[in-house]
Amino acid sequence: MAVQKPGIPKGTRDFGPEEMSKRNYIFHTIKRVFQRHGYAQIETPAMENLDTLLGKYGEEGDKLLFKILNSGDFLQGFDLSCLQSSGANAASLLICEKGLRYDLTVPFARFVVQHQHEIQFPFKRYQIQPVWRADRPQKGRYREFYQCDADVIGSNSLLNEADLIHIIDEVFRELGIRVKIKLNNRRILAGIADYIGQADKISDITVAIDKLEKVGIEAVNQELRLKGIADEEIGKLEPLFDIRGSNREKLAKLSELLQHSQSGIHGIGEAGRLLDLLDVLQLQSDYELDISLARGLNYYTGTIIEVKAMDTEIGSICGGGRYDDLTGIFGLKDISGVGVSFGADRIYDVMDQLQLFPVEAASASRIMFVNFGEKEARFCLSLLVKLHSAGIAAELYPDAAKLKKQLSYADARHFRYVVLAGENEMQEGMLIVKDMISGEQVRVAPDNLLEMAKRER
Amino acid sequence: MAVQKPGIPKGTRDFGPEEMSKRNYIFHTIKRVFQRHGYAQIETPAMENLDTLLGKYGEEGDKLLFKILNSGDFLQGFDLSCLQSSGANAASLLICEKGLRYDLTVPFARFVVQHQHEIQFPFKRYQIQPVWRADRPQKGRYREFYQCDADVIGSNSLLNEADLIHIIDEVFRELGIRVKIKLNNRRILAGIADYIGQADKISDITVAIDKLEKVGIEAVNQELRLKGIADEEIGKLEPLFDIRGSNREKLAKLSELLQHSQSGIHGIGEAGRLLDLLDVLQLQSDYELDISLARGLNYYTGTIIEVKAMDTEIGSICGGGRYDDLTGIFGLKDISGVGVSFGADRIYDVMDQLQLFPVEAASASRIMFVNFGEKEARFCLSLLVKLHSAGIAAELYPDAAKLKKQLSYADARHFRYVVLAGENEMQEGMLIVKDMISGEQVRVAPDNLLEMAKRER
Repeated sequence: MAVQKPGIPKGTRDFGPEEMSKRNYIFHTIKRVFQRHGYAQIETPAMENLDTLLGKYGEEGDKLLFKILNSGDFLQGFDLSCLQSSGANAASLLICEKGLRYDLTVPFARFVVQHQHEIQFPFKRYQIQPVWRADRPQKGRYREFYQCDADVIGSNSLLNEADLIHIIDEVFRELGIRVKIKLNNRRILAGIADYIGQADKISDITVAIDKLEKVGIEAVNQELRLKGIADEEIGKLEPLFDIRGSNREKLAKLSELLQHSQSGIHGIGEAGRLLDLLDVLQLQSDYELDISLARGLNYYTGTIIEVKAMDTEIGSICGGGRYDDLTGIFGLKDISGVGVSFGADRIYDVMDQLQLFPVEAASASRIMFVNFGEKEARFCLSLLVKLHSAGIAAELYPDAAKLKKQLSYADARHFRYVVLAGENEMQEGMLIVKDMISGEQVRVAPDNLLEMAKRER
Repeated sequence: MAVQKPGIPKGTRDFGPEEMSKRNYIFHTIKRVFQRHGYAQIETPAMENLDTLLGKYGEEGDKLLFKILNSGDFLQGFDLSCLQSSGANAASLLICEKGLRYDLTVPFARFVVQHQHEIQFPFKRYQIQPVWRADRPQKGRYREFYQCDADVIGSNSLLNEADLIHIIDEVFRELGIRVKIKLNNRRILAGIADYIGQADKISDITVAIDKLEKVGIEAVNQELRLKGIADEEIGKLEPLFDIRGSNREKLAKLSELLQHSQSGIHGIGEAGRLLDLLDVLQLQSDYELDISLARGLNYYTGTIIEVKAMDTEIGSICGGGRYDDLTGIFGLKDISGVGVSFGADRIYDVMDQLQLFPVEAASASRIMFVNFGEKEARFCLSLLVKLHSAGIAAELYPDAAKLKKQLSYADARHFRYVVLAGENEMQEGMLIVKDMISGEQVRVAPDNLLEMAKRER
């Protein structure tokens, strides 16, 4: 066979040992916090039936689904001319019935409905798995990336929101990332639409408001005009965006402005009670009510949450909110849920940029035995068995290569100690242990190596 | 939208909290041992270019690849009639350029070649990721399953084989599964082909021999006859299968029989030296030379390894061997590798059948606070913060539901302790802590709860 140039599909990545150590550091931290708060892990298949996925992410989302060609004779049983006439999108459904997971939320909703009789509600689950999107690849955006989601389903209590925000605070505290947690409530947004007399345009209004920080007030107003909202109504919005002060002060002003909207009053009440709960938790992170926060909407029905890293321009690294009827489409009505999703790839980029990874996150075994030949290797092997039994990571270089080569390997792989046991050392019953940081060498009796390794751990 | 009946593609599975705990127990054990032996983790994308995958798994394997439909207008740029005329297999290549990973070995070979200049050789990597095969689903065989592979690449030393067998021994010891490790060497199989004068039929011979245990000697002989091997030659094989005794005795007899085959002598020498190394390691598992072991072949060039669980009929749960030119197809010649692959799903089935999972593998948080209402919940929240800060898993029931409902939830989710802090308790400054196993209740001061929880961990 001809030699192939090795490569991977665009938008995907290999992760080598050092990247994996760092990624695992993030995943382990997030998992530890999820578990401490009582969230239980689930996993769902990479492939879902296209039925399950289609229509859940909007028209644009449908196009970004990776579809799996039916196996076997996928062309069997239909006329090819219908492929041609139906266009790519419809044609794909004739020859594909499965697709790759696009997020973890829809598979979770499907899971909850499918297993509703095995589940204890309120069901607190977390899920850390890759998702796939046929997006145009660009810096920081990949076609395969991990999501880390925690959701509670089957409880309306704001304690769940508080718990998830507590989780956010703990995760970023433990990772060492300073964040600001932004909060809003879909009902406040509905109240704003009521306030300007455009309740039926809440979607258009919130989509526009969501861009406020990115594009500025003028562009937002222009978008609102295009959606058919009169200048007078747009003018009523401006004082809302000028609301400043503490969270309580903002709520007080909102209460005034939105006093005639039932949704508004409801949303302000929820936000106030959530702030009360957060006060009890004594979070380390700042949290701030931000009425320009919408996060795509249509999905969320109550609290909306977004987390920004403070010391970089990378932006949102976590987000979520409450959704009131996620499982309805699969036949389980009136179940409220709330969840957050951590963006592991962006968190990685933030930590890398700010050099927040601890040194150990990239380290390998502690001890390497130099290989001086068959007899010496067998001797080292017997010592290795003892170290492994005690749970200590150690290795024997597999080939009797030149000492220089072995030492430079030990250096490149960041071993802490190198053990030299040649013929002389075996005869004298003493090992030479070289400290790879200081360069110092000490003589150690074989029986004392274990003690030394334990001490140094 | 109409209600959809939730389901997943055949051959795939959801994993709920209890299954995940058990699966994680297996994965963590395997990882811990891999790491202790100095193997570093990598991950590769779920999707590979079809170029990378095709032709690596035989004709049958090519058919079992899941192919990803090109995104966008996949029909653009070619005449549909060529789809029809080319047949399903060729047609699929016109509209798909990516496929799902079929195993971890080919992606690993691709990884090594692609990243050869960033890698320290010998490169010891492990990889734990799902793979996908469009096999006909059946009991114990899935279309999505996990492989757990450890490989060393860039070293010819038999110390690597010994190290991997040591890993096998430790993994199954720590999981509590009694296993038998079967060993063979491809060069011994070549020696056998030499011995009956059919060196060019080594593939046919080993494929037939591989079935010995399953189908018996008669069926094997019949298959050999069909491959054009004469009865006389087949007759020469029989004494080989009758070789019994200790590993050393078997090797001694083989040395006699295969004395005229250079491959045979080479293989016997390697097997002998490997046994010497294993003696030093004092394995707990039995290991046995089995010349009927071939494992698909064509792939392996030296040592062949297979592991069977002793106390069930489930069969092979781990296997591997040495391959001498895996990376050649991607342009990196003469690099020898050796690896093993643990079958997590089969290991799960063995452990479930033999009830080897420890109880904790399925347990959740330790402590649940009953929710008696808003004021009490806030009080409990402040205690929860302290427990979480100390790393103790604890939860507050999110709704002020009936006590009976909350207690039955606590029971179903296997909490160890339930804390009751109603209005009276808050006033008296004492909590009631209910032991969910004994049913006993004790009164504990809030400040002592943390101490109690730490003690009970």
